[in-house]
Amino acid sequence: MTYRAPVKDMLFVMKELAGIDAVAQLPGFDDAGYETAQAVLEESAKLNEGVVAPLNVDGDVQPSWFKDGEVTATPGFKEAFQQYTQGGWQGLHHPTDFGGQGLPKLIHAACQEMVNAANLSFALCPLLTDGAIEALLTAGTDEQKSTYLPKLIDGTWTGTMNLTEPQAGSDLSMVRSRAEPLPDGTYKIFGTKIFITWGEHDMAENIVHLVLARVTGAPEGVKGISLFIVPKFLLNSDGSIGARNDVHCVSIEHKMGIKASPTAVLQYGDNGGAIGYLVGEENRGLEYMFVMMNAARFGVGVQGLAVADRAYQRAVAYARDRVQSRPVDGSMKTAAPIIHHPDVRRMLMTMRAYTEGCRAMALVGAAAYDAAHHHPDAQARAENQAVYEFLVPLIKGYSTEMSLEVTSLGVQVHGGMGFIEETGAAQHYRDAKILTIYEGTTAIQANDLVGRKTSRDGGRVAKAMAAQIEATEGELLQQGSDAARAMAQRLAAARRAFLDVVDFVVSESKSNPNAVFAGSVNYLMLAGNLVAGWQMGRALLAAQVRLAADDDTEFMKAKIVTARFYADHILSKVPGLRDSIVEGAAGVTEMALEAF
Amino acid sequence: MTYRAPVKDMLFVMKELAGIDAVAQLPGFDDAGYETAQAVLEESAKLNEGVVAPLNVDGDVQPSWFKDGEVTATPGFKEAFQQYTQGGWQGLHHPTDFGGQGLPKLIHAACQEMVNAANLSFALCPLLTDGAIEALLTAGTDEQKSTYLPKLIDGTWTGTMNLTEPQAGSDLSMVRSRAEPLPDGTYKIFGTKIFITWGEHDMAENIVHLVLARVTGAPEGVKGISLFIVPKFLLNSDGSIGARNDVHCVSIEHKMGIKASPTAVLQYGDNGGAIGYLVGEENRGLEYMFVMMNAARFGVGVQGLAVADRAYQRAVAYARDRVQSRPVDGSMKTAAPIIHHPDVRRMLMTMRAYTEGCRAMALVGAAAYDAAHHHPDAQARAENQAVYEFLVPLIKGYSTEMSLEVTSLGVQVHGGMGFIEETGAAQHYRDAKILTIYEGTTAIQANDLVGRKTSRDGGRVAKAMAAQIEATEGELLQQGSDAARAMAQRLAAARRAFLDVVDFVVSESKSNPNAVFAGSVNYLMLAGNLVAGWQMGRALLAAQVRLAADDDTEFMKAKIVTARFYADHILSKVPGLRDSIVEGAAGVTEMALEAF
Repeated sequence: MTYRAPVKDMLFVMKELAGIDAVAQLPGFDDAGYETAQAVLEESAKLNEGVVAPLNVDGDVQPSWFKDGEVTATPGFKEAFQQYTQGGWQGLHHPTDFGGQGLPKLIHAACQEMVNAANLSFALCPLLTDGAIEALLTAGTDEQKSTYLPKLIDGTWTGTMNLTEPQAGSDLSMVRSRAEPLPDGTYKIFGTKIFITWGEHDMAENIVHLVLARVTGAPEGVKGISLFIVPKFLLNSDGSIGARNDVHCVSIEHKMGIKASPTAVLQYGDNGGAIGYLVGEENRGLEYMFVMMNAARFGVGVQGLAVADRAYQRAVAYARDRVQSRPVDGSMKTAAPIIHHPDVRRMLMTMRAYTEGCRAMALVGAAAYDAAHHHPDAQARAENQAVYEFLVPLIKGYSTEMSLEVTSLGVQVHGGMGFIEETGAAQHYRDAKILTIYEGTTAIQANDLVGRKTSRDGGRVAKAMAAQIEATEGELLQQGSDAARAMAQRLAAARRAFLDVVDFVVSESKSNPNAVFAGSVNYLMLAGNLVAGWQMGRALLAAQVRLAADDDTEFMKAKIVTARFYADHILSKVPGLRDSIVEGAAGVTEMALEAF
Repeated sequence: MTYRAPVKDMLFVMKELAGIDAVAQLPGFDDAGYETAQAVLEESAKLNEGVVAPLNVDGDVQPSWFKDGEVTATPGFKEAFQQYTQGGWQGLHHPTDFGGQGLPKLIHAACQEMVNAANLSFALCPLLTDGAIEALLTAGTDEQKSTYLPKLIDGTWTGTMNLTEPQAGSDLSMVRSRAEPLPDGTYKIFGTKIFITWGEHDMAENIVHLVLARVTGAPEGVKGISLFIVPKFLLNSDGSIGARNDVHCVSIEHKMGIKASPTAVLQYGDNGGAIGYLVGEENRGLEYMFVMMNAARFGVGVQGLAVADRAYQRAVAYARDRVQSRPVDGSMKTAAPIIHHPDVRRMLMTMRAYTEGCRAMALVGAAAYDAAHHHPDAQARAENQAVYEFLVPLIKGYSTEMSLEVTSLGVQVHGGMGFIEETGAAQHYRDAKILTIYEGTTAIQANDLVGRKTSRDGGRVAKAMAAQIEATEGELLQQGSDAARAMAQRLAAARRAFLDVVDFVVSESKSNPNAVFAGSVNYLMLAGNLVAGWQMGRALLAAQVRLAADDDTEFMKAKIVTARFYADHILSKVPGLRDSIVEGAAGVTEMALEAF
């Protein structure tokens, strides 16, 4: 089963929904229009289809391997990573000053989907390196930037994020790793970090760990956490690789999925202290880490839609091939490929509609990020930033939750064969389950949506989005096709439900936090469902226009049917979610603790 | 983590919802009332908690093992199986004539939940043996019964169901295995069967395969399939174990879950033909197999709620233990066990409410089965049989689909630890995925619900159930507590949605089968949700009565909260499903085949 990158759908979304023409007008993105996107996506497709995707099963069967403090990646990964970085993919959206290509996040996000669809485990290495790059760009000194960024961007080195400790997972206030200041301005780092993705491996010359720790005497809680660079190998004064730093991998985890991606336990300072370099100011580490985390959360959302698309493609291939039973409508007198059966189609359409909706939401979010960072007008930057920040928990939370349903359907389409590991469908199901957990569980995303993104501004951004959705409903009604009317009706019901929930969240957050947080994940699912559905509504409108112009009619017809499916089968869940949130808190909060 | 059998909830359901007192009035069940149930359940709990449950992880880490045609079960399984069968558990509900205990299915179903919650892989062996026993009871000759049943019931031998072939999965019309009649009335069997659960192992002296095959010259399709007994070892005339029959295990599958349960490829007749004995009449094999399958489908539904309960118990234990973050309501000044956080409670309540609802539905179904087989009045038998048959696809389909969501939430509650295999949550997630597939996928259950169970009688049974639900709504309104009114409102909305769908299914099945089957799985999910929710509504009423009488108040309060949660968070999904079914067919059926 070969992965086929959905270049056509990506370009459609970029052009019709995410506004790549407008992105190309932004200062610094002059050459980053549709044609560039097309050329870049086709190159990316070639590499990921041909080199990265074929290693996906290998990584599952022969995971990275720990021995004596060292981790050996799955055979083939190191060479593929060299091709990936030498092709410039690590630096695609990073600044040209440090060797990057300086392309918009919009284009990068599409390429990011491809490498993740090809191989989630592999793609985690560049994803974490991106996080380290973002943090250094935000808070690093000029010297730190010039020392680390070129090597991270060209793939000579990779990066990691070291947050979690055994007692500090979602709750980073409990971080205990410590940093002792040395007279030369560096620090000695001590502590244990767990769940460090690609925390040790043999694919790069050096690994740049970005580590949260407390400086001696720092305040308790989140306000006493600082961020440090702790390279695996120290650097000589000429920048060449020097002595081994005192950070060591003591084990890697035995996981249900993404087995090729080593999840390391790192021990800092067992032999006198690991040398660390402060990033930015002391005690502001969490703030900088959030920069990495927001990039990473967007990336994990893209992982969700990526694995969903891979599962979809595999299921379609099987459904075309597997012959079983006659169609229920009597249209064939012999057993048919199962793709003829309505329930198999329902499953495939569910997989497809979720994936396309989430892809559109992610790319629209990426375009907002580009405008937030590159728009000449400060007001426009601020507005786009607010939209982007509202979308990040939806992209992360909704796209990954839907990936669980989609990869489960992927197994289901295969019937009994889906449960047999050699078929490959099961790997996607196992791999996907981490996505709703790492970089902040769905509940953590939902807390962010409720707190920072909805309550804090009194629902302003949420309501502005609802107004835009209402405008789309008007356009759909005006367009008037059956599909457009169905979409308008579902969007309207979902938007009204959303507004009820926003009012509930805004009015009750302070006075009745347990009730609000009892519904927070449902709110996230409702909002993600609506926003992705809104993009499908906009896609439907664009497809109707291009269909009328006889432009790629088969693609446009499929887009319209998919949008309609989204409306009737996915958006239709939204009113029920509203009821659970607004009327359902008692069932969550009233159980006596001992009664569980 | 120890499994604790939910004896109290089982007894509550038996008494208040499934009517064990009425079951004990049925001829043949004189001693099978509440007290017996209590004693039996407590014994069952002891065995499953103490002996079977501790082997669950062992079976995952050290699956059954194939070598040279023989399969060795996970260490400890053979001894546990001896304890299980010597305790009389295999024969619990089978006739006393053949060494069984002759207890009602109602009591058996509760014990069946326990052994499955303890260890799905282990429990499959008795589950398949049950199927073989049922088939022989239905269609075996007296000689076949006296030869095989005592040994199957006392666990000296085990049974299997041999349906699937590489080209014949859901579509049994494509079975190609063949049976050549011999002059002595026996047959020579040839062919390949796949996915044969416990098809080869070392836990019993002999394995009695029940095999579908075509007699030479039989008609094409399902009407030419016969059922045969093919023992692994032939029997000498004195009934002792004789020569090895020509059926051999050539491999076992490498599966995502239930790894301790060997899934065999069996080769029949490679050395001249396996000796087989016809069961019942030629060409009526599928009919007999459906007897086995209905028992097995009910059993798989019970597996769904069993694994859900095990996942729930594990998640509760973790949530009580894991300390992380302060409660959002400011009620504690330090980090708290995560069970204090509203979203963790929402997840636990979801797991609990689904499990309790499905347990109640299954036990109510079991009681209907008992009345269908033991009621002195023919009319009452027929009515109960119709109810039982309506419920089987819901018990199988809905309980297993919900188990996917519940086991996923089980991982989610554990956060990153859930993805680490050693924690144990991941095993339930992997194990559960087979449940929506084997013994008929959810789509096959839905076809059954649409065709045999709804269209065929013009929705009579469905509508009669809706009328009973409406009566429960009336009682709830009369009871008048907040929880009862919330339940009444959700039940009413769900019942109206159900009736819309039943009308749609009945009126469109012939004229527009694609539209009906596009919504068949959603119909199954809707109906399962409603019927389980109805049981939760009845449970709420019973709990209110007992609460008023100061009877076990903590349990009754918890039941009421759980029922309310079910109403507001699960029943609330039903109206959206109605929309998808009645208004959503176009999105499923209009996609061009090439466009997928």
